[in-house]
Amino acid sequence: MAHDERAISELFDALTHALFTKDAVGAIAPLADDAVTFDLAPPLQHGPEITHDPARLEEWFRTWKGPIVSEPGERTIVVDENVAYAYGLQRMTGTKTDGEKVELWFRATACFRRNNGQWRITHMHNSVPFAMDGSDKALLDLKP
Amino acid sequence: MAHDERAISELFDALTHALFTKDAVGAIAPLADDAVTFDLAPPLQHGPEITHDPARLEEWFRTWKGPIVSEPGERTIVVDENVAYAYGLQRMTGTKTDGEKVELWFRATACFRRNNGQWRITHMHNSVPFAMDGSDKALLDLKP
Repeated sequence: MAHDERAISELFDALTHALFTKDAVGAIAPLADDAVTFDLAPPLQHGPEITHDPARLEEWFRTWKGPIVSEPGERTIVVDENVAYAYGLQRMTGTKTDGEKVELWFRATACFRRNNGQWRITHMHNSVPFAMDGSDKALLDLKP
Repeated sequence: MAHDERAISELFDALTHALFTKDAVGAIAPLADDAVTFDLAPPLQHGPEITHDPARLEEWFRTWKGPIVSEPGERTIVVDENVAYAYGLQRMTGTKTDGEKVELWFRATACFRRNNGQWRITHMHNSVPFAMDGSDKALLDLKP
């Protein structure tokens, strides 16, 4: 199991590195062919044809000046023979092209399958909660 | 595997029934002892002591007039020997005590472990995306 947990941690490391270097192809490489994601931005879900489109990521990367830093807080990883999941809080920091400094804590859940010996991300769910005070504001300044 | 998928579907059915009848204890029963949830409302996460507290759910139930109807759209369930995950879009409808009609589509991811032959929910992540147009509004009117 320790070997599999390391393999899954390496998928996260590859994602982190791809964000830092704004490498869209590198950010897509850990995804399974049928990956479905629920992201911070709309729509409700992205199917495989969108999650595998580097142009969409490149467009997002262009809204940032310099690297995008993504760091996990504590992360729980649970691994079985061919299925695994991980969840935890994640901190994203960086500077947008308009000079806005971003520091965002969000919730990240990822699911994995092993196919032909290779672990891949089959599902990612990233979000923040929203205020139930009638404002319906996404809560972007929460800290763990 | 079909047997395990059915066991997991039954956990979802138990949750759905507990929401419909506003049965807080029934809504907690499918959760593992160490369940951690990321919910629509803040905070970022709920640890086991909160996820297992019926008082918190009962307070939320009291904000609804009549049943809370929770229905899955398409749902993907992936099961291994002792670990499983499921994800899909979920529709919640009902009427709040102030008369507001709610129809909310949200994203739902759940993770499971089998302990002593019993499948339990170890992690739930429910969310909506938010607008990236500067308003930071949670998007509560999206449809699949």
